[in-house]
Amino acid sequence: MTREEEQKVFLDQLVEHRFFIPMDSPGLFARTSKFENLIKGLEEFIVKATGEEEVTYFPPVMPRKILEKSGFMDSMPHLAGLVSCFCGNERSLLELKEQLAKGEDWSAFLSMTDLSHAPAACYPLYPTCTGTLPPGGRLVHLGTTCFRHEPSPDPTRMQSFRMRELVRIDTPDNVLKWRESWFERAIQFLQDLGLNPERVEASDPFFGRGGRVMANNQREQKLKFELVVKVYEAGPSLAVMSLNYHQDHFGKQFEIKTVDGETAHSGCMGFGLERIVLALIQRHGFSPDSWPKQVRELLSH
Amino acid sequence: MTREEEQKVFLDQLVEHRFFIPMDSPGLFARTSKFENLIKGLEEFIVKATGEEEVTYFPPVMPRKILEKSGFMDSMPHLAGLVSCFCGNERSLLELKEQLAKGEDWSAFLSMTDLSHAPAACYPLYPTCTGTLPPGGRLVHLGTTCFRHEPSPDPTRMQSFRMRELVRIDTPDNVLKWRESWFERAIQFLQDLGLNPERVEASDPFFGRGGRVMANNQREQKLKFELVVKVYEAGPSLAVMSLNYHQDHFGKQFEIKTVDGETAHSGCMGFGLERIVLALIQRHGFSPDSWPKQVRELLSH
Repeated sequence: MTREEEQKVFLDQLVEHRFFIPMDSPGLFARTSKFENLIKGLEEFIVKATGEEEVTYFPPVMPRKILEKSGFMDSMPHLAGLVSCFCGNERSLLELKEQLAKGEDWSAFLSMTDLSHAPAACYPLYPTCTGTLPPGGRLVHLGTTCFRHEPSPDPTRMQSFRMRELVRIDTPDNVLKWRESWFERAIQFLQDLGLNPERVEASDPFFGRGGRVMANNQREQKLKFELVVKVYEAGPSLAVMSLNYHQDHFGKQFEIKTVDGETAHSGCMGFGLERIVLALIQRHGFSPDSWPKQVRELLSH
Repeated sequence: MTREEEQKVFLDQLVEHRFFIPMDSPGLFARTSKFENLIKGLEEFIVKATGEEEVTYFPPVMPRKILEKSGFMDSMPHLAGLVSCFCGNERSLLELKEQLAKGEDWSAFLSMTDLSHAPAACYPLYPTCTGTLPPGGRLVHLGTTCFRHEPSPDPTRMQSFRMRELVRIDTPDNVLKWRESWFERAIQFLQDLGLNPERVEASDPFFGRGGRVMANNQREQKLKFELVVKVYEAGPSLAVMSLNYHQDHFGKQFEIKTVDGETAHSGCMGFGLERIVLALIQRHGFSPDSWPKQVRELLSH
């Protein structure tokens, strides 16, 4: 089977076994309790495995200026989701309705709002850290519903998806040491769930030709690692977790300082919740009640 | 105190007592585990009180055509959130970046996507029901993160908020009987949590002068009831639940038929999760551990 055929078979099975309900839009799925119970179990297991009980939950939308200030619109603009609205009067609504009735484009009646979607869990965090960090920096556990504009028939590439992240903000040394400390533990985390992950050097999906240079830099400096697992036979493995070092990128943009007055560095470990659950379904089958006992116990909640 | 002052005091307290973390944007808040544990408890209590264990979870975004087809853009266009994206090439990105660097409007580089936000939990459900209902119709329990474009300094009026809904789709008689059966039980549900709700006739926040006619019709035909509780001393009470009868509105638009081949009618009962939790905090205080024993037990999870 080609990768595209495998994707279609997997999606059909997810629907047939009542994990997803199709929404007639690529990368959007309604989820059943059967699927969501696995997500909840995974969230609990992340808390247990990291010891980070306090979670900060950001809404799916955030101030647009975070997207602008963080450089996301420079580097990955094609993935951004912005919130637009109708801010017209009754006369322009009449015109909008006429366009709609004719089945014609009515986007001219929309205005950009101050809001965008969160493209990753950690973006809305940085502006809340502006100023001087406490001694020892910060370690924050985040949960955010993210959005990336990349319509795809692949059920493992959703446009709306949930991410847990641990974000470490401190001196370069401490951030790197923290990331280092997770290299083996992150592998173990996935192995405990019966997955067979591999750690690979990776890069973000930067835009255009300029993006290729950024991606090469990122790989050369080993700023991004992904833990990947085989979900489809054909083609590359699926990234289900990532371990990133942002250097002083966010510290500079959002004026975050260590106690010594230096610009803070940051790093994060991301868990793709839907992707991990989908990898588990692919690995252990479509009946979670029949999964290996250890996995069921780890995911009980 | 004026209502505005009360809102400010309440929000400051929610931040001070670590329920919310401000996001520097009206109607958007990061939530702590302290707040989210109350939400989780409430969700469990809704399952217990309704007996509806199977929940369908829609993502915060949905196909834009649902917004168009359902008439939302006709009646409440000012509350709609549409998803826009950058679909340009490298040349237009350069221009976008120039505008950004100058701090100027770059909305001309955005295009409307096929997606919008869900303005209420039930919108994405209807297209999945197109066709003939099973005998006895359907009763569905939904959970959706909704978006309404209405920036406000009032912490009880969020732009991004979560709604649980029970949606009943069947003959007019059966839908009305189902709604009727909840009038007392919904009051009891809130009373069990120590709230003191009142049931009032209500209308949706329709747009403009035409909207006033629609709102009057809705009230005259008793299509919408809200359960309201006093959260602020000044001004009106806060709607925390609603009981709605849509007549054949969604059945007609999304071609949903009863077993007899008639256009299906629908109704729903909505729970505003953040609003109920905020009403509970206002009622029982900022330390959930010291809330009345019965309330703590009902919200344990």
